[in-house]
Amino acid sequence: MSAEGGGPNPNFTFSEAMVSGLAEAGLEAVCIAPGSRSTPLALAFDAHPCIECFIHLDERCASFFALGMAQASGRPVALVCTSGTAALEFHAAVVEAMMAGVPMLVLTADRPPELRHSGANQTIDQVKMYGDHVLWAVDAALPESNAPEVALRNLRTLAARSYAAADGLRKGPVHVNFPFRKPLEPEGPYRPRFDQGQSSSIGRGVLVPTSEQVEELVALVSAHERGWIVCGPWPGRPPCRLVEAIAELGLSAGYPVFADPLSGLRFGPHTGWSPIIGSYEGFLQHGTGFHAPEVVIRFGAMPTSKYLSEYLARAERIYQVHVRSDGVWADDSHRVSCYLQVDEAELCRQVAKRCRREIGSWGVSVLAADERCRHRQDRFLRGNWFDVSAVAAAISALPDGGSLFLGNSLPVRHVDQFARPDSRRIHVYGNRGASGIDGVVSSALGVAAADPGRPMLLIVGDVSFYHDMNGLLAAHRHGLGNVTILLLNNGGGGVFRRLPVAEDTARFEALFLTPSGLDFAPAAAMYGLDYGCIHDQDRVALKEALCASFHGDRPTIIEVRTDGAKDERLRRELIHSLIEIQEDIS
Amino acid sequence: MSAEGGGPNPNFTFSEAMVSGLAEAGLEAVCIAPGSRSTPLALAFDAHPCIECFIHLDERCASFFALGMAQASGRPVALVCTSGTAALEFHAAVVEAMMAGVPMLVLTADRPPELRHSGANQTIDQVKMYGDHVLWAVDAALPESNAPEVALRNLRTLAARSYAAADGLRKGPVHVNFPFRKPLEPEGPYRPRFDQGQSSSIGRGVLVPTSEQVEELVALVSAHERGWIVCGPWPGRPPCRLVEAIAELGLSAGYPVFADPLSGLRFGPHTGWSPIIGSYEGFLQHGTGFHAPEVVIRFGAMPTSKYLSEYLARAERIYQVHVRSDGVWADDSHRVSCYLQVDEAELCRQVAKRCRREIGSWGVSVLAADERCRHRQDRFLRGNWFDVSAVAAAISALPDGGSLFLGNSLPVRHVDQFARPDSRRIHVYGNRGASGIDGVVSSALGVAAADPGRPMLLIVGDVSFYHDMNGLLAAHRHGLGNVTILLLNNGGGGVFRRLPVAEDTARFEALFLTPSGLDFAPAAAMYGLDYGCIHDQDRVALKEALCASFHGDRPTIIEVRTDGAKDERLRRELIHSLIEIQEDIS
Repeated sequence: MSAEGGGPNPNFTFSEAMVSGLAEAGLEAVCIAPGSRSTPLALAFDAHPCIECFIHLDERCASFFALGMAQASGRPVALVCTSGTAALEFHAAVVEAMMAGVPMLVLTADRPPELRHSGANQTIDQVKMYGDHVLWAVDAALPESNAPEVALRNLRTLAARSYAAADGLRKGPVHVNFPFRKPLEPEGPYRPRFDQGQSSSIGRGVLVPTSEQVEELVALVSAHERGWIVCGPWPGRPPCRLVEAIAELGLSAGYPVFADPLSGLRFGPHTGWSPIIGSYEGFLQHGTGFHAPEVVIRFGAMPTSKYLSEYLARAERIYQVHVRSDGVWADDSHRVSCYLQVDEAELCRQVAKRCRREIGSWGVSVLAADERCRHRQDRFLRGNWFDVSAVAAAISALPDGGSLFLGNSLPVRHVDQFARPDSRRIHVYGNRGASGIDGVVSSALGVAAADPGRPMLLIVGDVSFYHDMNGLLAAHRHGLGNVTILLLNNGGGGVFRRLPVAEDTARFEALFLTPSGLDFAPAAAMYGLDYGCIHDQDRVALKEALCASFHGDRPTIIEVRTDGAKDERLRRELIHSLIEIQEDIS
Repeated sequence: MSAEGGGPNPNFTFSEAMVSGLAEAGLEAVCIAPGSRSTPLALAFDAHPCIECFIHLDERCASFFALGMAQASGRPVALVCTSGTAALEFHAAVVEAMMAGVPMLVLTADRPPELRHSGANQTIDQVKMYGDHVLWAVDAALPESNAPEVALRNLRTLAARSYAAADGLRKGPVHVNFPFRKPLEPEGPYRPRFDQGQSSSIGRGVLVPTSEQVEELVALVSAHERGWIVCGPWPGRPPCRLVEAIAELGLSAGYPVFADPLSGLRFGPHTGWSPIIGSYEGFLQHGTGFHAPEVVIRFGAMPTSKYLSEYLARAERIYQVHVRSDGVWADDSHRVSCYLQVDEAELCRQVAKRCRREIGSWGVSVLAADERCRHRQDRFLRGNWFDVSAVAAAISALPDGGSLFLGNSLPVRHVDQFARPDSRRIHVYGNRGASGIDGVVSSALGVAAADPGRPMLLIVGDVSFYHDMNGLLAAHRHGLGNVTILLLNNGGGGVFRRLPVAEDTARFEALFLTPSGLDFAPAAAMYGLDYGCIHDQDRVALKEALCASFHGDRPTIIEVRTDGAKDERLRRELIHSLIEIQEDIS
């Protein structure tokens, strides 16, 4: 099985150069789906001492698992698959990575030029196959037996550059397509040679704001007491220095900080000293009882909260500053007055130290509205049992330092509405780039794999859980013990109950709600997860099950079955009672 | 909930025009995944009296189900989904449809222009999102309240043209992306208006070969006694007139017909009078004992058989004629001497009636090699039990008129090698466009849904079955009773055992074989399928289980567990014994 022309098989020489270069750039993890054409890459990754391999059978699961790992580690994770439809199974996670800004290296094996466009088996056009949904797409050179040395240098720099591109100012997926000609196997037992070749280190500066930009923002803040800071979702885990800088700006400017659950600001010690707002979903749905802000400073992506976004879209006179170091636009109401592509933490730090304002009466009224909503919500939750009760119980039981992954569509909205800011360091994740319901189980397990010391709580609905049941295979396969899946089974796509179309009951269930009718206990049995189902609104049993799982070491599914129609009725009842308290005030 | 500007909601006016147009063009079935943005399309399809809706929760399953339906019906099936990653979940099936030539209409809902590229939730760039993997991609106009009449005419012709494009000379997927602005719901109860608008019927002629082309082929056949006809996979079910015309050409030219299991020629009454060859995998692996053909006339895609393809690739002096009405190239060894884009049946019929040659001594020696292999294989199967034994038992028990869906990678190869031609009308399907292991369960159930009167046998390996377990939901949801799934569980990707890499046992299991370790009985329980597991090489129990399922009306999984290493060892032993009989002859 020797390559044409003798000498070592060039597929391996090339793959080893790439893998070496990626390891030197900092790559530590790769998710591999089995295949034949990808043999050179799979063997090289597997043999490299500094890179951990996670094998997955379903490429869709592999890609979302990698996405979760990259979110939790904040660093690129690689994906490897064989040629053909396998590479297409990555597409949804690739787009999520692109939209959310999660670094990912997608390495696909391909056929050599003579098999492309020839009708050869398992051969599709993989060149630029993810279209505009990647930051960079490269069709690598075909490995040659007598390649000039520059060809190998090219692979080393390609490794460094693709890693740096995925991990750039704007983070996201990079696709490198690798054609391999047979033989795809090494000659005899595999003996990799990871030479310390020339390695290109790639550095990057910090987008420090100019003094004029800082001056202008200081002047704006100083001139307007009525200001908010709005923090939308941040991919993965925002760095501590950023969280603290934004919290500091809120304090110094006297601006309440509206903290999306995925912004990194909803939980943490800073909630003790910074004016963090969490119940805006409650008090922005109707008249607020206070004037609109004059200034809004936004960080991160569009907020999860529809009511917050709509409030900002309606308010014509708000001067909206949108700050993003990655240069990505996130304003679907087209209300941004000033967009600054600068380092967020640096800007906050510099502005904060120039402002010293106690929160004024207007700010106090915003905080009071938040406080009233929170109390009313808490009381309502104590007196009623619906899906939100289970969410609240799970979050309150989650130990300090735990990870929380929020499924789409209802779980993230429930947490946005009902999770009060508190000082625990809880790391919250979700797939809010494209907000699909796909790949949620795998993404959560990827987070758990990247951060194995922490208890992980996934809150997921039944449609989304069904969609990615295959992802459960990763729990045992990758030894992920401390994982708790809170499965909210309300019999279908409960989020659709919020839509006007829910009124047309005859076709609503068949076309939108689409209850799967599945009993999920067998899924837990198949994948070897512990399983418990909470019936009869049993709060004690739920709490016990949660605590046992958070402090145990076996992956566990806790299914909570609720009546989706009642869930939605109670949620509306609660909103109505929130309107009443607003009206009492105003 | 009335649209801006009053009057009926234009999203519905536009959707109804499109759906009406598609129904008039001939569309009869649509697979819909639930979502909000797609509400106008979903409601319009659901309301149309001539189109049947199949609802699926996992878009990947929906798309492969539609692919199976389109294969079995030979006509376009539509797919509908909401915006975002949902549309990406279709991509693998879209590519399979493109590569295999299966007609499909992919209708994706999208956001209006102001939400695109704005950071809006669940909004990705859907324009040309399937790249070069569709025959045609259209970004439809945004529905307007006061649209000029030509805008609605445009939708009617778009419907007719997209249907015709998917169902053209070259069949495949067409993508139409529909932007919708809120409100997405009808005003009050939905009252669709499917006006009989102007409808454009689109016809197409037949690519009749010129008399020169016929003359040349007749001269070629007349001049060469040593000729083969090689029939590769054909998408879906080839028409009877084509099967009979090819069989007739084989008979008249005295050319043995090498019939891929997916060509439509392996089974059927014509096997009684035409020289159909099915055991080429056996006698082409080593010296054949007869001279190579001088002429090969090929139909369909590249054959499934690696040995057949390699034999043709090695033989330098074969004059190879490749006939395909769709104009797609399928020759990865680049040996085609003459490519004819003409109607296959027409060419065969015209050439056949000009040739009258009894099969000669060379042809007889080919038939004899086939016969020897078949007998030896049958004897070997009687004396040994391995995965192939289960495949052979299942196919022999399948009733006349049944459908057979072959999974990748081993099932289709086993059937290619071991299923002898016979006169039953068995319709064989597989996903051999890109030959992925994804979506196989859903595709098979789609075939069953399109052709509900026939018993359906799916033969699938454990990795592929795991990959598409979600697809099982369709069995009960769509009332597919007469479905039998023969699950060959050999503990992972058995096809990899054929590769040289299987020798490096240490990493082979972890990186390539990747056994899931799953017990599949709970999957059957979860989806409400009957389940039986055949242990201990129990041929009688297998036969009984198969017959009960074929003649019953409940979807059934019959799992056959084998030792993959032993399966491969016995397969090699069999091949070795086939070499011996060849050597005896030559």
